Amino acid sequence: MEQPFLREGERLDDLQLNGLKIIQKIDGFCFGIDAVLLSDYVRVEKGSKIVDLGTGTGILPLLLSQKTEASHITGIEIQPDIADMAKRSVEYNNLGDKVKIIEGDFLKAVEWFGVGYFDAVVTNPPYRKVGTGLINPSDNKAVSRHEIHCTLESIISVSSKLLKYHGRFFMVHRPERLVEIFYWMREYKIEPKSIRMVYPKPGKPANLVLIYGLKGGNPQLTVDEPLYTMNSVPENEGYR
Amino acid sequence: MEQPFLREGERLDDLQLNGLKIIQKIDGFCFGIDAVLLSDYVRVEKGSKIVDLGTGTGILPLLLSQKTEASHITGIEIQPDIADMAKRSVEYNNLGDKVKIIEGDFLKAVEWFGVGYFDAVVTNPPYRKVGTGLINPSDNKAVSRHEIHCTLESIISVSSKLLKYHGRFFMVHRPERLVEIFYWMREYKIEPKSIRMVYPKPGKPANLVLIYGLKGGNPQLTVDEPLYTMNSVPENEGYR
Repeated sequence: MEQPFLREGERLDDLQLNGLKIIQKIDGFCFGIDAVLLSDYVRVEKGSKIVDLGTGTGILPLLLSQKTEASHITGIEIQPDIADMAKRSVEYNNLGDKVKIIEGDFLKAVEWFGVGYFDAVVTNPPYRKVGTGLINPSDNKAVSRHEIHCTLESIISVSSKLLKYHGRFFMVHRPERLVEIFYWMREYKIEPKSIRMVYPKPGKPANLVLIYGLKGGNPQLTVDEPLYTMNSVPENEGYR
Repeated sequence: MEQPFLREGERLDDLQLNGLKIIQKIDGFCFGIDAVLLSDYVRVEKGSKIVDLGTGTGILPLLLSQKTEASHITGIEIQPDIADMAKRSVEYNNLGDKVKIIEGDFLKAVEWFGVGYFDAVVTNPPYRKVGTGLINPSDNKAVSRHEIHCTLESIISVSSKLLKYHGRFFMVHRPERLVEIFYWMREYKIEPKSIRMVYPKPGKPANLVLIYGLKGGNPQLTVDEPLYTMNSVPENEGYR
């Protein structure tokens, strides 16, 4: 069967949701269960405008197009080849009316959209700080996993600017960095309202945390019931 | 049977631990499962000096005298009648060599002990902010539940001063205030190293959080496996 949307080294994966498919690289970074869990954690009003900061192959916009009643979902991706895959996935799924992929640096998104444009920000950012080791910034996997193009502070800072008053912020990250996450959220006026800890299985520490914050919200955190993935590959390390 | 240690309106409760007993008021504030969970969360080296800020009837020093190999445990309590009960419980259990109760304001403890005196601080502080309603500061229950004599910031600030470098901080609190807790801990150089969420039962949000911080520690949080109490009276609301 001909697959004109696919380039060499790519394949089409079924998302098991209303027939949605996504283009991914055969030997590249593939979306993880973290993106799927985050898409389930997102709650937005009908007609909301959502932006996904660092959308990668567009997994979150694709899933959110089906799981929410958002009117528009914008995904921003800095890596040209990955952004191109996301664009082709949107086209393949005939979601062009609802989902738009922008190739570029999301740190500049306030210039493009203006302050307070979005009802919700979602993001599944790189989890790891850039350490002292050498990382090749042209390596897609490295860019997806390490804070090469953005830091936690810059993501939260730009999110706060993009969100309207009482706009919603949804992020998945590693529990190791929760202290820092709370710190920057409060600093940039996105009050953490609820978190959900994700555990690989009973008896183990959490390996992911889902976070919901409210721009300009009052302090009062709810810690939702724990979630067990029963999965030995719980984050974006090549889950397929 | 004669009970010379007891005054009118008091009773002796069995702690189900090495024959320990505690004096509590029949119709007053009684220790809760939160204190018991916190005592289980505490890990200290043999020979450690521990201080309990706001010890109440002395439940934490009593439990920690059996559950740790600490050499000295000091409990500080501002309410004279409650501190007196704690002193009598220590005497009753023949723990005077190991446990000392001080009647006074723990915010002054740095004057008494000096900076960096303790290896560990434990605290089960009042959970509720003082709101706009009237609270009677001579009401024992109110003092135990509301931040009348101390705030989260003041507790964490004084803990940081009392702790030696790499000293340990253990607290139980409400998840609602976790953002604020992390904020002040970082501000006062007690890095949160692990937390454990406590849930009343599956399907419900957490109602307590156990926190362990390290004075001068590096950022890296572990979120321990969840704990279920299966108890409808999960915090200090009169658990007996």
